[in-house]
Amino acid sequence: MSTGISAARYEERLGRARAAVGAGGHGALLIGVGPELEWLIGYAAVALERLTMLVIPASGRPTLVVPRLEVGAASAAPGTAAGLVELATWGETDDPFALVAGTLGARSAAGTVGSLLVSDGLRAAFLLRLQAALPTARFALASALVSPLRQVKDAEEVELLRAAAGAADRTVEAMIAGRLVGRTEADLAREVRDRLVGEGHDNAEFWIVAGGPNSASPHHEVSDRVVRAGEPLLFDIGGRRAGYCSDITRTVWVAGAVDQGPDDAFRRLHGLVEQAQAAGRAAIRPGVALQDLDRAARAIIDAAGHAEHFFHRLGHGIGLEVHEDPYLVEGNGAALVAGNAFSVEPGIYLEGRYGARIEDIAICTPTGGETLNGVERTLLTVRGE
Amino acid sequence: MSTGISAARYEERLGRARAAVGAGGHGALLIGVGPELEWLIGYAAVALERLTMLVIPASGRPTLVVPRLEVGAASAAPGTAAGLVELATWGETDDPFALVAGTLGARSAAGTVGSLLVSDGLRAAFLLRLQAALPTARFALASALVSPLRQVKDAEEVELLRAAAGAADRTVEAMIAGRLVGRTEADLAREVRDRLVGEGHDNAEFWIVAGGPNSASPHHEVSDRVVRAGEPLLFDIGGRRAGYCSDITRTVWVAGAVDQGPDDAFRRLHGLVEQAQAAGRAAIRPGVALQDLDRAARAIIDAAGHAEHFFHRLGHGIGLEVHEDPYLVEGNGAALVAGNAFSVEPGIYLEGRYGARIEDIAICTPTGGETLNGVERTLLTVRGE
Repeated sequence: MSTGISAARYEERLGRARAAVGAGGHGALLIGVGPELEWLIGYAAVALERLTMLVIPASGRPTLVVPRLEVGAASAAPGTAAGLVELATWGETDDPFALVAGTLGARSAAGTVGSLLVSDGLRAAFLLRLQAALPTARFALASALVSPLRQVKDAEEVELLRAAAGAADRTVEAMIAGRLVGRTEADLAREVRDRLVGEGHDNAEFWIVAGGPNSASPHHEVSDRVVRAGEPLLFDIGGRRAGYCSDITRTVWVAGAVDQGPDDAFRRLHGLVEQAQAAGRAAIRPGVALQDLDRAARAIIDAAGHAEHFFHRLGHGIGLEVHEDPYLVEGNGAALVAGNAFSVEPGIYLEGRYGARIEDIAICTPTGGETLNGVERTLLTVRGE
Repeated sequence: MSTGISAARYEERLGRARAAVGAGGHGALLIGVGPELEWLIGYAAVALERLTMLVIPASGRPTLVVPRLEVGAASAAPGTAAGLVELATWGETDDPFALVAGTLGARSAAGTVGSLLVSDGLRAAFLLRLQAALPTARFALASALVSPLRQVKDAEEVELLRAAAGAADRTVEAMIAGRLVGRTEADLAREVRDRLVGEGHDNAEFWIVAGGPNSASPHHEVSDRVVRAGEPLLFDIGGRRAGYCSDITRTVWVAGAVDQGPDDAFRRLHGLVEQAQAAGRAAIRPGVALQDLDRAARAIIDAAGHAEHFFHRLGHGIGLEVHEDPYLVEGNGAALVAGNAFSVEPGIYLEGRYGARIEDIAICTPTGGETLNGVERTLLTVRGE
């Protein structure tokens, strides 16, 4: 899986990260396997029990500490292949934590390493051993420094997100055009996965298919429940395509052959979600607080008396991770910046009855918002057989 | 995905974990999303940026701290459904770390919580916040306590591993019986993934397909290189089936239509690996040090002058995780216990030329070893077209 992002871009990212380490007076960034590593040097390493860690000090070249077994893959990563980092390998019986500490120690005549910023997803097994190997260091999260950089997508990243969104759109459209009635959620989920991969995804990562009352559970797991005519069906699907994530939700009404159309209550409920989602997207522009997008959408649902039935945030950032900064949630007063990419996904859930959610990925542009997904948002009634 | 393990089993596991917390004089186990959570209560939660945490104190009922959004899934987990844990939910604007701290504080009149054992895979973002919320607590790894329990597979778990191994066996056998020559590694990997799922896997997790010189890279990523006649081809594949993992490696010789059979050098090399793998498996019995299995296999490869070409450990434990304790590696003097499940996978890698590896999953029984995989181990020459 390659994102096709150029070495020059990784060099620029490493340079900005290193500058931020110095500007903040920190000792170093300690980046384990995960999206930060992928963003910094293009290395989409497999998360293993063996430590792989990119050490970025305020000055000097970054070092990638890597198990000997992974040298081949590590060397092939764009940032490594371009010579942007030193490799420091360790064998099966070496202590990689001592190696990381040594890398830092060698850079510090006084033996103090300053505050160390670890990637958010670093395993506790690694962090506790690093804390033991570096007892005088203060540990904090790298996201404080790296996330503001990662949150601003460049043009190449926006194109990758657009391509992923297009593939997810076509998957949803194909699903709702096909046979639904009489099939289990699990069977439909299998088709979703196959279609996402068929549309060029490296892999499908989630495939919520929730029929009837299951649509009232936002993170429903697919079941062997059979989809029937005369009920709503919610798809919330996505995965990674060339490294970047897709995520789309649509709720359709399955009418069946004898046209058991939606009742007025569901029409109104879905219409409210549609209005709220449009209001959230309409509020997008640089400088607006992230929580104000949430508030814009929520106000519409609250005013209709459904405050308690919309009990999750409006959305999440998206990029190399399907959920990443920034989060559109009450309490997040940070301002939108051009280049932010995130979901806008209000929902209303009536437990035991049904629910509806509409989700698109949107980009904050210098002048407003752009929505990457294009599937119809007004309630679609499909035959489904 | 359900493992079909009974609630009584989860109750027993929770009881043993709680007893170990008390016996060790610890404060509590703090278990995040991951295999420990799945082992303890059968909750295969999705790893999200929202904290889900099972708190198991030395006395009193365990509490599952869970985001409101996940209550449906959490409640459906076998251990929760059976009433073995209390649920403590938090909303989008609550502080879940304070909730965990409060859960512990309520159990301690003195306000001291003792040492807290966190699951090994807990994200640094969660651990650092827990450390901040509980500044007087000492943090250590839960694996010291939970791993010895998890390492001993019960009969149900062995059957699940056996079923996963059988599915992986059939996948390898189907692959090597099919067309290989002229296809890319990536194309073969797609077929591997489809076949694993077709054989009942929830998902394929890895699909190393390495032809010719790529077989010399133990963790080769599949490429667009085309498989040719007259070279070795290595498959190292697996995934999860009903929660439990498969993992098998075979290296075959692709002879093509005009019978470009293996040269003597490759025959010898593969034969050495076969002997080493058999020696590793033959050494399995309770009480033997884990490193002695590694030594038994390595001695054969070393004696043939290939010491430097076998540069990884002999194997890894397997169960709910594809890599878990115990590890068969020099320096691990712990003794094998009946119920241990692990891979035995020596390899010899001649960089730039080719390599070979043979891997099976084996179980330590009360009297010796049992190998779960059954695909032929002697070098297979296949036509591949």
